[in-house]
Amino acid sequence: MNQSYKQKQSVTYYMCDRTQQLTLSMLVNVLLNVSENHSAELNRQESVIREMGFNWIVLRYEFVVTRMPHYKEEVEIETFATEYNKLFTYREFIVRDNNQNELIKVKTTFALMNIENRKMTRIPSEVINPYQADFSKRIRRNAKPHEVDLIQAVQTNYSVRYFDIDANQHVNNSKYIEWLLDSLNASFMASHQIQHGIITFDKEVKEDDTVTSKVSHRSDAHLYTDHQILVDETIHASASFQWNER
Amino acid sequence: MNQSYKQKQSVTYYMCDRTQQLTLSMLVNVLLNVSENHSAELNRQESVIREMGFNWIVLRYEFVVTRMPHYKEEVEIETFATEYNKLFTYREFIVRDNNQNELIKVKTTFALMNIENRKMTRIPSEVINPYQADFSKRIRRNAKPHEVDLIQAVQTNYSVRYFDIDANQHVNNSKYIEWLLDSLNASFMASHQIQHGIITFDKEVKEDDTVTSKVSHRSDAHLYTDHQILVDETIHASASFQWNER
Repeated sequence: MNQSYKQKQSVTYYMCDRTQQLTLSMLVNVLLNVSENHSAELNRQESVIREMGFNWIVLRYEFVVTRMPHYKEEVEIETFATEYNKLFTYREFIVRDNNQNELIKVKTTFALMNIENRKMTRIPSEVINPYQADFSKRIRRNAKPHEVDLIQAVQTNYSVRYFDIDANQHVNNSKYIEWLLDSLNASFMASHQIQHGIITFDKEVKEDDTVTSKVSHRSDAHLYTDHQILVDETIHASASFQWNER
Repeated sequence: MNQSYKQKQSVTYYMCDRTQQLTLSMLVNVLLNVSENHSAELNRQESVIREMGFNWIVLRYEFVVTRMPHYKEEVEIETFATEYNKLFTYREFIVRDNNQNELIKVKTTFALMNIENRKMTRIPSEVINPYQADFSKRIRRNAKPHEVDLIQAVQTNYSVRYFDIDANQHVNNSKYIEWLLDSLNASFMASHQIQHGIITFDKEVKEDDTVTSKVSHRSDAHLYTDHQILVDETIHASASFQWNER
C-alpha cells in the first residue's frame, strides 16, 4: 500500500487572485510544500536528497479542477507516490473541501537531477523505497499539451527576475505558470476558469534569459488555450488549458 | 492595554529566495495575513470592513532586521495596533525565533480607503475601537526614504501583470517590493542582506501601467540603496534600504 500523507491548508490573501480564488501558481507552491512535508516524515526531505547529490525536479503537471478554493477556505491536501520506474516517479495530489468533496486532482511526474551535472539520473532505491510506491518497468505515455497554432498565436516577453530563481538555482515552477497565464488577455482571465490543464517542462530557463510566452485559442465542445515558453526559439515548456466561463 | 495577537508561521520553500531565506515581499504577505487573523478575532475582518464601504491600505513600512528567517524555520509573529488618529493607525509586528529572540521588527502605517471614491477617509470608532489602541490627536512625523541620486540612478521598467492585482483591485504591496529589489544587481542582492528599510506608498499603480524602478547607491558608515517607483515621471512609491554583507 502507498504511503499517503494529508495536510490542512488555509487559503490566505496572498495566495489569491483578484477574484479571491487560489491561483494555479500558488496551488503548485502549496502542493510541493505538502510533498516536501510528506518526504520529511519519511526522512527523505530536500536536505537529505541534496546530501546524496540530487534534487527532485517536476517534469509534468496534469490538473483536473472542479472548483478552485477561495480566500479563507480551509482545504485538506492528500498526496502519495503511485508508481515509479528507473527514471520517473508519479505523484498524485487530491485537494478536498471541508465536506470531503474533491476540488482538484493533480497528477505529477518527478525526476531526479544530479546536482553536479544538472542531468537526470536513475532513481536509487534508497531514495524511493520509503514511499512504498509500485515499481513498474513500463514508462508511462502521458498525454501531451496540444500544439500551439503559430499563425494566430500572440506572444509576450518576460525577463527572468531575481526572485524567480529558487534555492535550487532554478526558475521556480510557479513562475512558468505566471508567464503562461499572464500572456492571456486580462478580461479573458477574469471571466474564465481552468477545468483541466497539462504543463510539461522540457528545458531549464536560466537567470539571464528572456522568455517568450506564446498562446493560441482553440475550441470544439470546449474552449482551450495552448501555450509555449521559449528561449531563442527553443521550447522550454508547453501547456494546454481547458476553460469554462465563470 | 493594546490587543496583541500571536501566530506561529513556518517558512516554506516558496517563501524563500535562492539563499533559502524568507524574502521581504513574502514577509509582508505573511505579516498582513497575521494582521487579518488578528482583525478576524475581533470581528473586524476584511469582509466586515468592506461591508462598511472601506478597505485598509498600507502607506508605510519600516523594517529593522536582525536576521531573516530561513527555510523550514518556525517563527512566532506578534502584532498589535499601537496608536491612531483621525486618518492613520499604526501597527507593529515582531517576528521571533523559537528561543524568543527578536528577528525582525516592522512598524506600519495603515489608512482607510473609501471603496467608492478610492480616497482616504476618517477612521470611524466602530472600525478601530476593538483594537484598544491609544487615540492621539497628533499625526506622526515618520522618517522618509532618502532621495534617489538621479545622476547615478539606474532604471528598469516593469509591466503590471495579471497576478500583480489582488482582490482589492490594487497592485499588491508585495509586488512593489519585488520591483524595488529586482532593480538591484543580482550579485549585489545575493551577497548583501537588508538591515533596515523604509517603504512609502504615495499613489496606486494601475492595471495597464508600466512602472519604472529607479535605484541609486550611497554609503557613509553603512551601505544604502535609495529607490523610486514611477509611472510617467510621477512617484508612486519610495524606499531606502540599509545593507550589510552576508
